[in-house]
Amino acid sequence: MSDSEKEASTCIKIAVDAMGGDYGPKEVIPALAIVLKKHSDVFFHIFGDESKITPYLNRYPVLKRQSKLNHTDKVINNDEKPSIALRSSKGTSMRLAIEAVKKGKAQAIVSSGNTGALMAMAKTVLRTVPGIRRPALASLLPGIKSDTIMLDLGANVLVDGDALVQFAILGSIFAKAQKKIERPNVGLLNVGSEDTKGPDHVRAAAQVLSRIKFPGEYKGFVEGDDIGKGTVDVIVTDGYAGNISLKTAEGMGSLTKHYITESFASSPLAYLGAIFAFFSLRHLKKRLDPRRYNGGVFLGLNGLCIKSHGGADALAFSNAVLMAVRLARLDYIDQTVKEIAYLAEQEETMVMDKAV
Amino acid sequence: MSDSEKEASTCIKIAVDAMGGDYGPKEVIPALAIVLKKHSDVFFHIFGDESKITPYLNRYPVLKRQSKLNHTDKVINNDEKPSIALRSSKGTSMRLAIEAVKKGKAQAIVSSGNTGALMAMAKTVLRTVPGIRRPALASLLPGIKSDTIMLDLGANVLVDGDALVQFAILGSIFAKAQKKIERPNVGLLNVGSEDTKGPDHVRAAAQVLSRIKFPGEYKGFVEGDDIGKGTVDVIVTDGYAGNISLKTAEGMGSLTKHYITESFASSPLAYLGAIFAFFSLRHLKKRLDPRRYNGGVFLGLNGLCIKSHGGADALAFSNAVLMAVRLARLDYIDQTVKEIAYLAEQEETMVMDKAV
Repeated sequence: MSDSEKEASTCIKIAVDAMGGDYGPKEVIPALAIVLKKHSDVFFHIFGDESKITPYLNRYPVLKRQSKLNHTDKVINNDEKPSIALRSSKGTSMRLAIEAVKKGKAQAIVSSGNTGALMAMAKTVLRTVPGIRRPALASLLPGIKSDTIMLDLGANVLVDGDALVQFAILGSIFAKAQKKIERPNVGLLNVGSEDTKGPDHVRAAAQVLSRIKFPGEYKGFVEGDDIGKGTVDVIVTDGYAGNISLKTAEGMGSLTKHYITESFASSPLAYLGAIFAFFSLRHLKKRLDPRRYNGGVFLGLNGLCIKSHGGADALAFSNAVLMAVRLARLDYIDQTVKEIAYLAEQEETMVMDKAV
Repeated sequence: MSDSEKEASTCIKIAVDAMGGDYGPKEVIPALAIVLKKHSDVFFHIFGDESKITPYLNRYPVLKRQSKLNHTDKVINNDEKPSIALRSSKGTSMRLAIEAVKKGKAQAIVSSGNTGALMAMAKTVLRTVPGIRRPALASLLPGIKSDTIMLDLGANVLVDGDALVQFAILGSIFAKAQKKIERPNVGLLNVGSEDTKGPDHVRAAAQVLSRIKFPGEYKGFVEGDDIGKGTVDVIVTDGYAGNISLKTAEGMGSLTKHYITESFASSPLAYLGAIFAFFSLRHLKKRLDPRRYNGGVFLGLNGLCIKSHGGADALAFSNAVLMAVRLARLDYIDQTVKEIAYLAEQEETMVMDKAV
């Protein structure tokens, strides 16, 4: 079969920016091979520098058959200012991968490159869903009761109440798809549970959410510890608090890992204990592994765009791609467009942009 | 010896609101006994309902000798709005305890009651250090490299850049006392490390901190994961992001504990592993125990006021009291007043209130 025949016979097509993140193709290419083992019907459009990608691609004959390598030697710098990156983005691996989604060649794009640049570029190329003003970055976080979807994780530092309401709506639609719940519980992240607490934009959003009908069930304010507890399905916040909260959780994960290692290496007896507790410790480390939760989605975009952590290795990157595959299969974007259009028709949902 | 003779022969006097928090005297009184075992020269002024306190106090004869019970049956409600609590605060255990510091009868006050009410009342009674506009809640958080002092943890939701600069100064003076470092490293909590990132008040503070001389060494922006890493000695933020970050860390701690318990109870073999790893696990649990870090200080007040977590048990509350004892011994407030007065004299420190 030729590349195009092979592509036609697969269901899901994913565009991949192979040059992003700290490691580039070295981790991205093995990640795609991991995904193919689980989903044999996926086809990849890989974007990036041929000379750097091919050596890795040659190691995975199945992947080589089920992918097309689109060469470009232009890349987005990891620490470029988004506005500058956007201006000179033409022909870069990130931009070409996003354009593949716009052109309908792929159902999703995955990149571990510069978050701000990816967001700016995806917004420019894919546009937002009609009615939605700005995309928000959402991700799944582990919790005792259940996993929680949190947004925004840093795409929008300053927002008003209406933007938070839109995030709540987008998060609810995402939770329905991702967690398969009919009416997800939604909480607004704040510094206390009383009505009078918190900054203006959070209290303004609370008032609207208590009033309107939307695909989620508004449960009031939640606090930072409700993330780990898994109290609600969706936690809504601005990109400032969201990013700080997410990174705090990451840092605590590293600290815990450090404590575990130290505790089981503190004495010969402790070391012996670690041998006997081998399976438990392996289980524990697996559950604490942040790579399981790699992958953020820009919700509200008119196209699937997944951001992987910049420091992602092959396993972590594969989880971001698996998220893309899952959402592509669910026709997630079509569902979002329909739900938002329906809400925009309802008179009480004043927060939808009237430009629709 | 009489009560007053006993009081005169001790060095450190601490005022304790015995009625605050979820458990009141049931946990507060045993906590004081724990402190006395470590510091025999401490005398307590206990404020609260005699009939509820005495049964517990009777169990600790040493404590009974080294304390004075000041009866009041008025208490501050745990979920009262701060402004309302303040208006009707006269004669409550919290207010009387704070007034004991104002009158010089105690060097510090400790309470696990309503944070907002405690802050409002302490500010009204004790006032801020001349030159400082608003107090900030600071606490010690665990980190890999070293413990970090973070502030504000929720006393001020909305602040401007100058307030953040004052927090940086207060945090530095506190770190010098608490961590015994000559020039503590100070970071501003933000959503990225580049100059252009983050909200206005954070960027405004960064500009001032890079320019002025103050008791700390400004190290630029830090992110949420720098808390767990312990990158700097002091992390400065507003009460909105600070409270959310602190609570996120708490929630992650609970999640980790849950994972550990589950991993070591998942199978008979895992259970056997837990027996062999008993000492390591005990060590690990001890290090992960949030009670070790209980106790926040309102920095910038003209008197020592320590806030304990509302859910604190005896061990946790004793740590908050131990912090009070340590800071009282260091003459921490006198040091702060001197440092701030010195800074206010320096022309370049424009952020000190000119009312001084």
